[in-house]
Amino acid sequence: MTTWLSIPADSDFSVHNLPFGIFDPGDGLPRAGIAIGDHIVDLAAAAEAGLFGKRRFFKKLFEQPLLNDFIALGKPVTNRIRRKVQDWLCLAQRPDNATRLLADRRSARMHLPVRIGDYTDFYSSIEHATNVGKMFRPDNPLLPNWRWLPVGYHGRASSVVVSGTPVRRPHGQLLPKGQEIPVFGASKQLDFELEMAFVIGKENPLGEPIPVDRAEEYIFGLLLFNDWSARDIQRWEYVPLGPFLGKNFASSVSPWIVPLEALKAFRVKGPKQTPPPLDYLKGSGASNCDIQLEVAIRSGQGSETVVCRSNMRYLYWSMAQQLAHHTVNGCNVRVGDLMASGTISGPTPGSYGSMLELSWGGQEPIPLAGGTTRTFLEDGDSVIMRAWSEKDGQRVGFGEVFGTIF
Amino acid sequence: MTTWLSIPADSDFSVHNLPFGIFDPGDGLPRAGIAIGDHIVDLAAAAEAGLFGKRRFFKKLFEQPLLNDFIALGKPVTNRIRRKVQDWLCLAQRPDNATRLLADRRSARMHLPVRIGDYTDFYSSIEHATNVGKMFRPDNPLLPNWRWLPVGYHGRASSVVVSGTPVRRPHGQLLPKGQEIPVFGASKQLDFELEMAFVIGKENPLGEPIPVDRAEEYIFGLLLFNDWSARDIQRWEYVPLGPFLGKNFASSVSPWIVPLEALKAFRVKGPKQTPPPLDYLKGSGASNCDIQLEVAIRSGQGSETVVCRSNMRYLYWSMAQQLAHHTVNGCNVRVGDLMASGTISGPTPGSYGSMLELSWGGQEPIPLAGGTTRTFLEDGDSVIMRAWSEKDGQRVGFGEVFGTIF
Repeated sequence: MTTWLSIPADSDFSVHNLPFGIFDPGDGLPRAGIAIGDHIVDLAAAAEAGLFGKRRFFKKLFEQPLLNDFIALGKPVTNRIRRKVQDWLCLAQRPDNATRLLADRRSARMHLPVRIGDYTDFYSSIEHATNVGKMFRPDNPLLPNWRWLPVGYHGRASSVVVSGTPVRRPHGQLLPKGQEIPVFGASKQLDFELEMAFVIGKENPLGEPIPVDRAEEYIFGLLLFNDWSARDIQRWEYVPLGPFLGKNFASSVSPWIVPLEALKAFRVKGPKQTPPPLDYLKGSGASNCDIQLEVAIRSGQGSETVVCRSNMRYLYWSMAQQLAHHTVNGCNVRVGDLMASGTISGPTPGSYGSMLELSWGGQEPIPLAGGTTRTFLEDGDSVIMRAWSEKDGQRVGFGEVFGTIF
Repeated sequence: MTTWLSIPADSDFSVHNLPFGIFDPGDGLPRAGIAIGDHIVDLAAAAEAGLFGKRRFFKKLFEQPLLNDFIALGKPVTNRIRRKVQDWLCLAQRPDNATRLLADRRSARMHLPVRIGDYTDFYSSIEHATNVGKMFRPDNPLLPNWRWLPVGYHGRASSVVVSGTPVRRPHGQLLPKGQEIPVFGASKQLDFELEMAFVIGKENPLGEPIPVDRAEEYIFGLLLFNDWSARDIQRWEYVPLGPFLGKNFASSVSPWIVPLEALKAFRVKGPKQTPPPLDYLKGSGASNCDIQLEVAIRSGQGSETVVCRSNMRYLYWSMAQQLAHHTVNGCNVRVGDLMASGTISGPTPGSYGSMLELSWGGQEPIPLAGGTTRTFLEDGDSVIMRAWSEKDGQRVGFGEVFGTIF
């Protein structure tokens, strides 16, 4: 596919991608767009220009500040919109309405793309679960249920923020080492977690499970996800009911939702599962995605240091298995719900997706550019995560999710 | 206060109460109302009749199928509306517009009153936490953090349903006793949990904690809450990240939100807290509520058996403490968010708020009317919870929350 638009060769937002997001070009009016190279196709303007038919309907839809209503129309519609934009981008020559339909991506302000009804966080990397288990429960790292079900828990939807939103260091109860009485103070073990998340595109009625082999019909697209974590708050609070204030102060998402269909060329099989899962979790085919991941830290105004390189394909439990498990008891999901993978660690130390693992509980400082080191995040540090797939000259990426601690 | 309307003496919905809900009289058009005796004041009709001024504004507001926008106007407005309705109900004689403004509560269909952004479940009864702890962790019933902070976790908002909605018995992974390999099947230990919940009426910005002594400004009102639980699913899944599928198949709420202000006469001090809480949790005054609670089970078409009598005043942690803790790390709350108390068990066996405790893990069957017994719920069983306060001839109640298992 060739477009009349100039797109940098290394752009995440190639003509094969066409992810959806909510942007405003500076006028404070958030609306729907599709990223392409350094530009954004303004979908409300495209609707007005008649690109999709039903001008008034689509213009009104794309002038909304959230994608939920659009996504709820279903994959036949959302994929048709992508195809129509692709056709327009691949016209033989630059169309007259190009200027009117394109906005500058570099100067646009991005917003949270969906109203998230519920956010669930899984724990689907066996490397991460084993690493954390070793530190929190040395005698019992991988719990008996872990290989039988995709462990997950409910997170907080209200504090999910879009990339770029600064993150305030949380205060809370901390138990000093060797003490029995907690103290109140700022977290000293502020961490990131490298995750991918998917956005629900179709609802199931309460009481009706989603079968594993139909689960992908319910997945609209994917995002990069930073599940900020305060390890010291988490350690003191999390038994017996799970993480709460150690997590819910903020989670950051990348602004562009990459439709599942855009990842078709990059689907791969997941790791062999032993023991074989129960029937309702038995998936088949290329249920994982080959998505390269990296995390960089920038201290203050310094330069970036990449501290982690990982890949979504390491995940033990697939998205389809997560969703089948989540709903097997009849739990319903709604359009815009977010399901995050849990930290995606790989098998080698350089692929661990959190500072907890990279610094092995704070024991091994991580060297940063400029000669400084980190065990956990300090004020002024920025965390930048990136994700992309690449194959046969096709590149489909997620851009980045970043946040600065203050 | 005397009203021209005939109100049964034992009605939960006295002229002192005036709770808000969303009803439809059978026309399928949900709208806002206030319960009074066996009637409902149709707030859209009352707005149209000029009861509140700004006719068009309030009519449009009350014709919405959710109370969020109304609640978001703040307590000065919501309390003024209640006062205006109270004035109208206490006119010297039945007004001409009475028929137009009143609907029949007994035949109205009730809806979920708010769009719940996030739902949090606390674990604030020391009797419940100790009882459950004894069964799940005999050597370690009350964990070290319990007396230091109001333990809580995030629940699922999508599956919160209004009273009357039937509840499907969940399927899931169960670990047979003494086995190491789970099986898939219907839960055999389906339970209720007797809880109260509060609805958030005011937002805090992300990053800005709500101080404990201002927390009640953020509480719009209270509901009765049944946190259905599948104990066998929960037991296998909950370590280390907390309850998930054992809880998120359904939670039921009573339809009428009783404003915090209607409970003023029934506020009481909470239990003495030892050790004294950290500063950010130091509350003062009458932070609890004297609300009588009961749970009845009806098997099939049989008659009811009251199996539990408890009281909200037993709660160790107050609502203000829960909210101060929830936000101390900067977590934001939004209008319509729900915060449930956790099971409210009292000190005696007849006051335990779950079958897990009442049957002591299934060891002591609970006798029901008609000679049958239960350890956990069977298909066709209905659970009915009721809550009310009573003092000096004033009664302010919550009606009931009920659900039938199928």
